[in-house]
Amino acid sequence: MKINGTPYRTIWPAPAGQAIEIIDQTRLPHEFVTVRLETMEEAAHAIMEMLVRGAPLIGATAAYGMALAMNDDASDSGLESAFATLVETRPTAINLRWALDRMQAHLKPVHPGMRPEAAWAEAAAIADEDVAINAAIGRNGLKLIEQAWEAKGRQGCVNILTHCNAGWLATVDWGTAIAPIYAAHDAGIPVHVWVDETRPRNQGASLTAWELKSHGVPHKVIVDNAGGHYMQHGMVDLCIVGTDRTTARGDVCNKIGTYLKALAAFDNKVPFYVALPSPTIDWRIQDGVAEIPIEERGAEEVSHLQGRTASGEILKVQVTPLGSPVANPAFDVTPARLVTALITEKGVCAASPEGLKSLFPDR
Amino acid sequence: MKINGTPYRTIWPAPAGQAIEIIDQTRLPHEFVTVRLETMEEAAHAIMEMLVRGAPLIGATAAYGMALAMNDDASDSGLESAFATLVETRPTAINLRWALDRMQAHLKPVHPGMRPEAAWAEAAAIADEDVAINAAIGRNGLKLIEQAWEAKGRQGCVNILTHCNAGWLATVDWGTAIAPIYAAHDAGIPVHVWVDETRPRNQGASLTAWELKSHGVPHKVIVDNAGGHYMQHGMVDLCIVGTDRTTARGDVCNKIGTYLKALAAFDNKVPFYVALPSPTIDWRIQDGVAEIPIEERGAEEVSHLQGRTASGEILKVQVTPLGSPVANPAFDVTPARLVTALITEKGVCAASPEGLKSLFPDR
Repeated sequence: MKINGTPYRTIWPAPAGQAIEIIDQTRLPHEFVTVRLETMEEAAHAIMEMLVRGAPLIGATAAYGMALAMNDDASDSGLESAFATLVETRPTAINLRWALDRMQAHLKPVHPGMRPEAAWAEAAAIADEDVAINAAIGRNGLKLIEQAWEAKGRQGCVNILTHCNAGWLATVDWGTAIAPIYAAHDAGIPVHVWVDETRPRNQGASLTAWELKSHGVPHKVIVDNAGGHYMQHGMVDLCIVGTDRTTARGDVCNKIGTYLKALAAFDNKVPFYVALPSPTIDWRIQDGVAEIPIEERGAEEVSHLQGRTASGEILKVQVTPLGSPVANPAFDVTPARLVTALITEKGVCAASPEGLKSLFPDR
Repeated sequence: MKINGTPYRTIWPAPAGQAIEIIDQTRLPHEFVTVRLETMEEAAHAIMEMLVRGAPLIGATAAYGMALAMNDDASDSGLESAFATLVETRPTAINLRWALDRMQAHLKPVHPGMRPEAAWAEAAAIADEDVAINAAIGRNGLKLIEQAWEAKGRQGCVNILTHCNAGWLATVDWGTAIAPIYAAHDAGIPVHVWVDETRPRNQGASLTAWELKSHGVPHKVIVDNAGGHYMQHGMVDLCIVGTDRTTARGDVCNKIGTYLKALAAFDNKVPFYVALPSPTIDWRIQDGVAEIPIEERGAEEVSHLQGRTASGEILKVQVTPLGSPVANPAFDVTPARLVTALITEKGVCAASPEGLKSLFPDR
């Protein structure tokens, strides 16, 4: 998407080749800094330290990391050692292993002399496919926003609430939940986005707000507590969120707090949509609350908060009392009964076994 | 309640008389500092700058402010001017005007020479009555916690979720929502409190956590997004929150985000209790969502956050992008249908017109 008028992706080969460039997302929203990665080790570091984050973007970065590794050592042992290093960077990210498996399977049969070229081409293909999937999610979700706009008699604007960051910064381009919003904005539908701050990591306030602002999409940042109030007062026309894992019956595991917004949407008859690339569907499980283990993350994410001081310095401050313990579940599960529809690259369907089977008949 | 073993109120006459002492709540949870107020102007400043906050405590501070004023100038004009100064400190606080009206009505008929003594006695009466009301709320709510403890077969502990700060720091002592928790803890029932951080002003993380820690009540701070997840997993036995305004049918206007927790409690069959002193009941209105105007507060409460740096300095950092607008509704309304019961100083009742009339037959 655009940053102040200039189109960007979150990752791209450097103009002179032999390196990749990324946006250092740890500096957002306070500073826009791009970083050049010239070695596989630098790519691994960028994933580990969360300069890049978001499952699709992690996958693409790992794929390009393999390409960087092939520049240095395209032997079988070079291939294996790059895989081993990169796969350890974020052990729980599904796309990471998927991208590395795909690169390894693609490169193993290739003569080492040809591997660098093949690796760069395959990494580019992985990145381009992510963009194509997200663009399709955007087109499919656009229809739902168009419906809301028509239902309002094309008056005012369509107010959309989102939680966390499922925007282009989490992918290679477009994003998942935000892709339909960009599509609507670019199509001339006036949209206004309520951006949930998304404590504890504040991905909404720091990433979603920044990318919407940079692309020129009207929005307001609100605390996570506020969305229910706006729904009670008719100030939210629809919600769109992303998901980290979707069960075969349409339960949705997403950033902590998503469930609360889905309850408020249901209570106020506001449509609650979940956007997802189909690889996030876990066909083996049904009951998300019972079957999905929820990651407990470190206390410092809750007790401390990063921001910019009046003098421009970026630092962390503690907001809890010394000696008060903290708990930090990272995700929650929204039962399918609260989800109006799922938006995938194949189309829109009900959050139900039948709905999902209608789009994915082979599963 | 206790601070590391020593009993405190939030406001008390200085040992040598002629002054009052308060806890500077703007320094919490990072520093415990008491401040001596020797003049009416200092009391007014303490209210304005929120060194004291919470409707009951504001009322008590204003009453003592009148007593300080009488020390300096007990004439009719001195009385009127003190009233005029103090009533302007927080124009929307109902208890502020109530306490000042009561002090003025009490002092006007008294000979100026007797006014200082009468003023100190009446301010002390106002403070003591607040303590008595809250202690009664504590005793009444204790029965509900005892029931939960019995229902669990007296195993483990009673997990209680609360939002914002309706603890002793908001009153003269005991608090409203937290009073039953202190009563249960002091009665030997093992309780554990999930403390909602309560963005944007973080009253949970900075005040509720601090007062629970200081009194020795087990608790954990969680982000506002997390409570629904814990309810889904049976880790919350009941919720207790306070209220700023309760309608005649039992709708509850409380800190923004309360509605979301009430929805989650209802969805998971977790009792949701609201504790209130009866003066917060507004008998003139029924439908809280339609009839209660919600205060929109300043953007900086959302965009900036105060905390302690690694070196111990207390400062504010910005967490939103420069140029991203912010919205900040301060309260929301929880419909009576989501409230299991109201806990008042007169007893516990259903959140309904009939329930309230059973406790307050004269209204």
